[in-house]
Amino acid sequence: MEKIAGNKCFGGEQLRYQHTSSSLSCEMTFSIYLPHQVTALADSSAIKLPVLYWLSGLTCNDENFVQKAGAQRVASELGLVIVTPDTSPRGEGVPDDEEAAYDLGLGAGFYLNASNTPWNKNYRMYDYITAELPALIEEHFPVDGSRQSISGHSMGGHGALTIGLKNPEKYKSVSAFAPIVSPINCPWGIKAFENYLGEDRQTWEEYDAVSLIKNGSMRIPSLVDQGSADQFLEEQLKPQLLINACSDSGLAIEYNLRDGYDHSYFFIASFIEEHLHFHAKHLA
Amino acid sequence: MEKIAGNKCFGGEQLRYQHTSSSLSCEMTFSIYLPHQVTALADSSAIKLPVLYWLSGLTCNDENFVQKAGAQRVASELGLVIVTPDTSPRGEGVPDDEEAAYDLGLGAGFYLNASNTPWNKNYRMYDYITAELPALIEEHFPVDGSRQSISGHSMGGHGALTIGLKNPEKYKSVSAFAPIVSPINCPWGIKAFENYLGEDRQTWEEYDAVSLIKNGSMRIPSLVDQGSADQFLEEQLKPQLLINACSDSGLAIEYNLRDGYDHSYFFIASFIEEHLHFHAKHLA
Repeated sequence: MEKIAGNKCFGGEQLRYQHTSSSLSCEMTFSIYLPHQVTALADSSAIKLPVLYWLSGLTCNDENFVQKAGAQRVASELGLVIVTPDTSPRGEGVPDDEEAAYDLGLGAGFYLNASNTPWNKNYRMYDYITAELPALIEEHFPVDGSRQSISGHSMGGHGALTIGLKNPEKYKSVSAFAPIVSPINCPWGIKAFENYLGEDRQTWEEYDAVSLIKNGSMRIPSLVDQGSADQFLEEQLKPQLLINACSDSGLAIEYNLRDGYDHSYFFIASFIEEHLHFHAKHLA
Repeated sequence: MEKIAGNKCFGGEQLRYQHTSSSLSCEMTFSIYLPHQVTALADSSAIKLPVLYWLSGLTCNDENFVQKAGAQRVASELGLVIVTPDTSPRGEGVPDDEEAAYDLGLGAGFYLNASNTPWNKNYRMYDYITAELPALIEEHFPVDGSRQSISGHSMGGHGALTIGLKNPEKYKSVSAFAPIVSPINCPWGIKAFENYLGEDRQTWEEYDAVSLIKNGSMRIPSLVDQGSADQFLEEQLKPQLLINACSDSGLAIEYNLRDGYDHSYFFIASFIEEHLHFHAKHLA
């Protein structure tokens, strides 16, 4: 693992690392924010902090959230580590969409394990996010792996919800901004799942938050924010499917429809403080 | 003037406009943040808010500060409008450095009026920032032109300091992050001034904060933050020249050397709240 960037930020450090991923069979980059509660210590092994994993959306890499969300200020106050992985495998040998579409291939891993060729060698973001990366983080940083939560935006909101629902023993809480709540019911998701998972739609439900809830997945404290002026609301995001599934299953979810907000990081920046406080409460 | 983007952010609106600039003889883009104190009103002519102009550094345009500084949260609390202009004239007809260097020509206007060919037709950022843009802003937005302040980063810190020192009747306060305090004494500034202003070094002092202070410019409340780990500290920024000039002239300046911070927006984001509060105090 190699450090490729580091900037002091709100008393702590915003760091960037490269490493070889065994799950993804390629070099990967991730960012991590260590608040001053860690970086001020001469011996950081004396402390272990809770950690939030943030999953970004289509076209993003590990840097968008780091540069635009303004999360470091609040993480510094809360003593929270934030890990920001990339959104797909990367590199010369990794297959991409033939037309380099923004919603398939590079930058569009959908946080699943692909079963279909040519994707199934590298596109195993589910394993990477749930197992390989947390093990790496716990090995190298003063992080308490028993206190981790997960959040994300859009495709990353889908990732956070599905991963949280499938692994309630691993995550204390889950949250999402403008998530794709049911990829099997929207164009982005159908295109991705047809490619990554193949034609057997039964297998798709394993990576569909609404299906997981309907099929009785475990409970986990959940918070979702959605902007009412989001340009993808009707065709891709369909939050009502999530609200209905939670209601039908008696699953509590905190859902905030935010008047006039769109799909951008200006929306995320406006409410990230509330999400970090939500997670900190469950990580305490 | 045409609106080209708008995003709700911390209850207000982050907007982007294009207009034809007479000072610069080209199309220009600027961003403006209107806090909720304006946008919540049905009739915004009922209110006039104070305004901060932010000048960005080399290679930037109007978007860097908007996306990375996290200023909207605080501006929203303070009821402060923030205007973020571009850093140079732009477009097909505007001359650029022959080798497209990052520190001359496009993205490197240095907030002066060029007197040397071929720059003198378009490179008149001083007039644009001090006269044309404020007039446009006051015409179209609920801004109180008698309550304006100015701030900036690096080359934009140089712009803020020189403009503030030359126009204490127009600005209530000035601040800067990692400013070029004396362009006539550093490689970035000498290269730019040789090109924009020509060989007569006497004329350079009009755009040099340290010279302006030595030559007895008017007083204006001033705040400067500088990171101790800034990669440009020794060769380009030389804050000691500013501190000495202020000391010699009996000019009060609030100067914070921030241990371990570098030249990036992670540094600006960490201390922008203090700068906005400083300006709000003088704009009250």
